[in-house]
Amino acid sequence: MFKKVCIIGCGLIGSSIARAIKKNNLSNQIVSSNRSDFTNRKIKKLNIVDDSSSDIKKMVRGSDLVIIATPISSYENVILKIKNSLKNGAMLTDVSSVKKKVISLIEKNIPKNVSWISSHPIAGTEESGPDSGFSDLFKNKWCILTPSNKAKDQDIKLLRNFWKKIGSKVDTMEAKQHDYILSITSHLPHLIAYNIVDTTLKIKKKKASDIIKYSAGGLRDFTRIAASNPIMWRDIFIQNRKNTSKMIDKFIENLKNLKKIIKNQDKKKLEKIFTKTKKIRKEIVKAGQDISKPDFGRS
Amino acid sequence: MFKKVCIIGCGLIGSSIARAIKKNNLSNQIVSSNRSDFTNRKIKKLNIVDDSSSDIKKMVRGSDLVIIATPISSYENVILKIKNSLKNGAMLTDVSSVKKKVISLIEKNIPKNVSWISSHPIAGTEESGPDSGFSDLFKNKWCILTPSNKAKDQDIKLLRNFWKKIGSKVDTMEAKQHDYILSITSHLPHLIAYNIVDTTLKIKKKKASDIIKYSAGGLRDFTRIAASNPIMWRDIFIQNRKNTSKMIDKFIENLKNLKKIIKNQDKKKLEKIFTKTKKIRKEIVKAGQDISKPDFGRS
Repeated sequence: MFKKVCIIGCGLIGSSIARAIKKNNLSNQIVSSNRSDFTNRKIKKLNIVDDSSSDIKKMVRGSDLVIIATPISSYENVILKIKNSLKNGAMLTDVSSVKKKVISLIEKNIPKNVSWISSHPIAGTEESGPDSGFSDLFKNKWCILTPSNKAKDQDIKLLRNFWKKIGSKVDTMEAKQHDYILSITSHLPHLIAYNIVDTTLKIKKKKASDIIKYSAGGLRDFTRIAASNPIMWRDIFIQNRKNTSKMIDKFIENLKNLKKIIKNQDKKKLEKIFTKTKKIRKEIVKAGQDISKPDFGRS
Repeated sequence: MFKKVCIIGCGLIGSSIARAIKKNNLSNQIVSSNRSDFTNRKIKKLNIVDDSSSDIKKMVRGSDLVIIATPISSYENVILKIKNSLKNGAMLTDVSSVKKKVISLIEKNIPKNVSWISSHPIAGTEESGPDSGFSDLFKNKWCILTPSNKAKDQDIKLLRNFWKKIGSKVDTMEAKQHDYILSITSHLPHLIAYNIVDTTLKIKKKKASDIIKYSAGGLRDFTRIAASNPIMWRDIFIQNRKNTSKMIDKFIENLKNLKKIIKNQDKKKLEKIFTKTKKIRKEIVKAGQDISKPDFGRS
């Protein structure tokens, strides 16, 4: 499919893409670039790329496909470094969870002969780093492409095919819509998980061991989400701060109302709300976004 | 261990206890009582008890151990019905998630010759009803006993042994302390999960299919928790409303602060918070309250 692919930033996502490309034979050569030499050595040792170096220009040179998989805060630095080394006719994509600002930042800096289409594979675990990646991470997961008006149909088709070949289901969406939807389905849930664990940590000082000990009653499940990559999520919340702020406000308003219903001991209203929330679960399972088997696995 | 055990309310928890008693041969006879004849017939068909009937007095009569496993709102009704049918020297326990009010309610109504010690097995799934129970539900899970001053040591020992024999690790705690700790580790997390799903449902009208489709980005995990038994949780929040309200206030205060940090784009502070929250996960895994394997199972 490609002669050379370069992955910039080989963490959980980047290293999983590298593994998936190798497994599915999608490129003659795969290289990666990471700032730290320790990481470059590790990735070469893991044998998931053919070469890896902090010399980003050298790695990018001659690549048909370049994938930025670093935290969003380093995008400007990355694009300024690679812009003059990108091959004529190369395709550039990324994997960020927020799109609007990122797209125009890259667009502003990219040479005309390079095709830039942003991707968002909705996949991940609470682990980070190259050791935690695996080739099936994207299997049956959604990947959203947010091409700007400038993107050519044939390039969108090529990128769509790439993601399909590593297992994803692919959809396209406008960047603005993407950032709004993801603020609901992903960014607010992560922020809430971080917040409940952070709130607990502040109380914890007094009752530390008991809180850990009895965390299986619900808190445990939030700590898994709140163990996600701190840098990545810091950047996501800041990039999508307008949507996230709006969602926080809606969430707080709703929670205050729920508190009032509990205070008034309004059994009927509470039961009605909790019955409604139970239904959405069924829709999610029906849509293949989770399995119906209850969480028996953890012990 | 017992000659006759009676379980009042055979839902997920009650039916799991019945199955565990049978599996471990802890009683010569197990009976249950449910208000609905449909449920009584179903339980007999499932072959997890020897008899089941809506005639609660008949079922309770002659039992050495009686376990109330109904929602908290029916406790008063239950104790008034059974108080005169309880066997001399019988032990009475329950499985509720909130203790303080429940304990005094039962204590007020119970005959002197009956030993009353409240239990809270911290175990469950998002499923409800007798079909969803299984004998290993309590295996390696904590069960907290909250005996009042009136409880005799030998009775505490007997009840502790019973829970151990069905697989639990047992701890004792004062009721007040129990309700406080559980408001942090279980009640607040459940309320937050209900609230995020309810907030989403209100936005959903416009973007319904997209929200379901991309729920794997985080929201999905909350819908599992928010699919828990509506009646049970309605009663828990109302019973523990003072602690829950305090936790809601702390949670909102913290969230408002987090919103401000995001608005100010304070990268350092955000990173510091998210690194702290990552650490508590390790403590929970270390304490055996979750497994370190990331959530790869769901697809």
